[in-house]
Amino acid sequence: MRQALELASRATMATSPNPKVGCVLVKDGEVIGQGWTQPVGQAHAEVMALRDAAAQGHRVQGATAYVTLEPCSHFGRTPPCANALIDAGLVRVVAAIEDANPQVAGRGFAMLRDAGIAVEYGLLASEAREMNIGFFKRMETGRPWVRLKMAASLDGFTALPNGQSQWITDASAREDGHRWRARADAILTGIGTVLADDPQLTVRLVDVTAISAHQPRKIIADSQLATPVSAKILQNGGVTIFHSTSQMEREKNLQSAGVDLRFLPDHSSTKNPQVDLLELMNVLGRDQVNELHVEAGAKLSGALLQAGCVDELLLYLAPKLLGQGRPMFTLPALQKIDEADSLKVHEMRQIGETIRVLLRWS
Amino acid sequence: MRQALELASRATMATSPNPKVGCVLVKDGEVIGQGWTQPVGQAHAEVMALRDAAAQGHRVQGATAYVTLEPCSHFGRTPPCANALIDAGLVRVVAAIEDANPQVAGRGFAMLRDAGIAVEYGLLASEAREMNIGFFKRMETGRPWVRLKMAASLDGFTALPNGQSQWITDASAREDGHRWRARADAILTGIGTVLADDPQLTVRLVDVTAISAHQPRKIIADSQLATPVSAKILQNGGVTIFHSTSQMEREKNLQSAGVDLRFLPDHSSTKNPQVDLLELMNVLGRDQVNELHVEAGAKLSGALLQAGCVDELLLYLAPKLLGQGRPMFTLPALQKIDEADSLKVHEMRQIGETIRVLLRWS
Repeated sequence: MRQALELASRATMATSPNPKVGCVLVKDGEVIGQGWTQPVGQAHAEVMALRDAAAQGHRVQGATAYVTLEPCSHFGRTPPCANALIDAGLVRVVAAIEDANPQVAGRGFAMLRDAGIAVEYGLLASEAREMNIGFFKRMETGRPWVRLKMAASLDGFTALPNGQSQWITDASAREDGHRWRARADAILTGIGTVLADDPQLTVRLVDVTAISAHQPRKIIADSQLATPVSAKILQNGGVTIFHSTSQMEREKNLQSAGVDLRFLPDHSSTKNPQVDLLELMNVLGRDQVNELHVEAGAKLSGALLQAGCVDELLLYLAPKLLGQGRPMFTLPALQKIDEADSLKVHEMRQIGETIRVLLRWS
Repeated sequence: MRQALELASRATMATSPNPKVGCVLVKDGEVIGQGWTQPVGQAHAEVMALRDAAAQGHRVQGATAYVTLEPCSHFGRTPPCANALIDAGLVRVVAAIEDANPQVAGRGFAMLRDAGIAVEYGLLASEAREMNIGFFKRMETGRPWVRLKMAASLDGFTALPNGQSQWITDASAREDGHRWRARADAILTGIGTVLADDPQLTVRLVDVTAISAHQPRKIIADSQLATPVSAKILQNGGVTIFHSTSQMEREKNLQSAGVDLRFLPDHSSTKNPQVDLLELMNVLGRDQVNELHVEAGAKLSGALLQAGCVDELLLYLAPKLLGQGRPMFTLPALQKIDEADSLKVHEMRQIGETIRVLLRWS
């Protein structure tokens, strides 16, 4: 199963919205075929492993398949993998974890068992889940796995009082940040960042084609539709703006610039409704966004935290003390320390001189 | 030498102001004696190793000594170790590093060589230096190694806006903090912390006798002598207050309470002179303080940073977001990011759920 997980890790983000899967075929104690998920619409891991075995001249009848996810049972873009395994004459399938896709969830195993194949699962399940964390989150909740990136000094400032923020982190941390962008299906930012920094929010510092098939979609939370049509983020297309007020002229201009507009006001009673962030996540989930990468300012980041939308915090702490500056998150004052959420450190390491900490809520 | 370093690590802080040293005697490829520095005034590592060899019935003539520091050459509280090694008839001494004590610095090696003993040094020198970092700092600069401890939330706050700070970090991090207190010769705080928190600043959460012979001295920077005679920090004695204004009545009361007072105004032209922090370090250096542990508020901590007095930052980051609160350090606003000092991460680990980062300037 370790080998199957290693194979799964060779699949790129181009498999998305499908999960990355690895498959190893074993017969008489010998590996006779290996495969991993191909870009979306192409063959899944099991089929690739069967093809690999055939190409090497192995007969797969009587073999065992080790696969990092329950084989699929439905006709999607490709035929069900469970059928392929049955047709190939396998006698045993060991899966790491049950598929969370309601179209599969146990049916793949049932199909295999009905065909007389021995089925086991649960081996290295948490590693298998981790590899497709966004897929599992979306299948279970309808919303993407939300990773919020924030870079600050050791004493918690994202910029000097005069607004200067370039560069708090060093080049290797910024490159690492682009690697996280590349593995996401979409990148979310706020209008504040668009107006202040005019970012492109593309993957540039690493080779995107090695990680994904294309640039991630770009999502802007922009209540008033204040994004200028000249903004750099609009230049390469693939932009969706969520807004919460009607602005006929601006809507027309942005649509002419190729922007996908979504009107999504929250139900607050204020005169200026904001974008409904939880509903935004539901919309992105329906759009098959598994992993959402957030790079936004203190306001949108704080609002996402308050709305309970964030699954993971990707924090870059530069070994510098700024003393004064802009805070990471706009959040209301607490009355007691106990009121603060307690996060769990999921991973901690150095990227160049920068400290990178990955934290989760659950 | 690894073994000698391991032996050195068994010496407690009770050796201070002397360095921790380990010694291994080897003859015909066999370890015949081991020793490490005893509490101050008692035998050094070399003498302990010679005694150990004798106790085991080994003849040390012709042996090699591996020692983590240049053997001392002067009569201090004990006779010179170099003499003991010469008298014992050793043929070779391998030392990790030259002693930085100007009374020794090369003379120990010279004495050994003059007696016909082969001398080498430089093996695992940086590890040997690290083990006695405070001793080396004091010998080289006359000032202690200053370790500033700070505990904050991930977003850089040490307390809520209402001042509540108990507890940002968890019990295991607080216990770890007491371990650092115990290994210091003295603990420095400011009058702000004394008045706000009324701390004892003693080692309580760990067994101090296992680390040091006694509680570290307590040092308060208190310009106006505002420390109340009822302050908990005064209860167990061992307190020195540095002040910068004359306050006859307060001086009398504090002296009656057993406090050691030192008048040390800086040369600022303001009406309210502050304690001269760099000179404070020189005074503590003359008092043979090797390691100074600082637990203070944003003001004194910031002033120490600005005065360039801090060698190491011991940062506890609790995996919590407070959103708003009190900053770590009172420092002037920078105009450019480049103006911020760049620290180096010396060590990074988790203590319970808390992230502990040790950073250094040089």
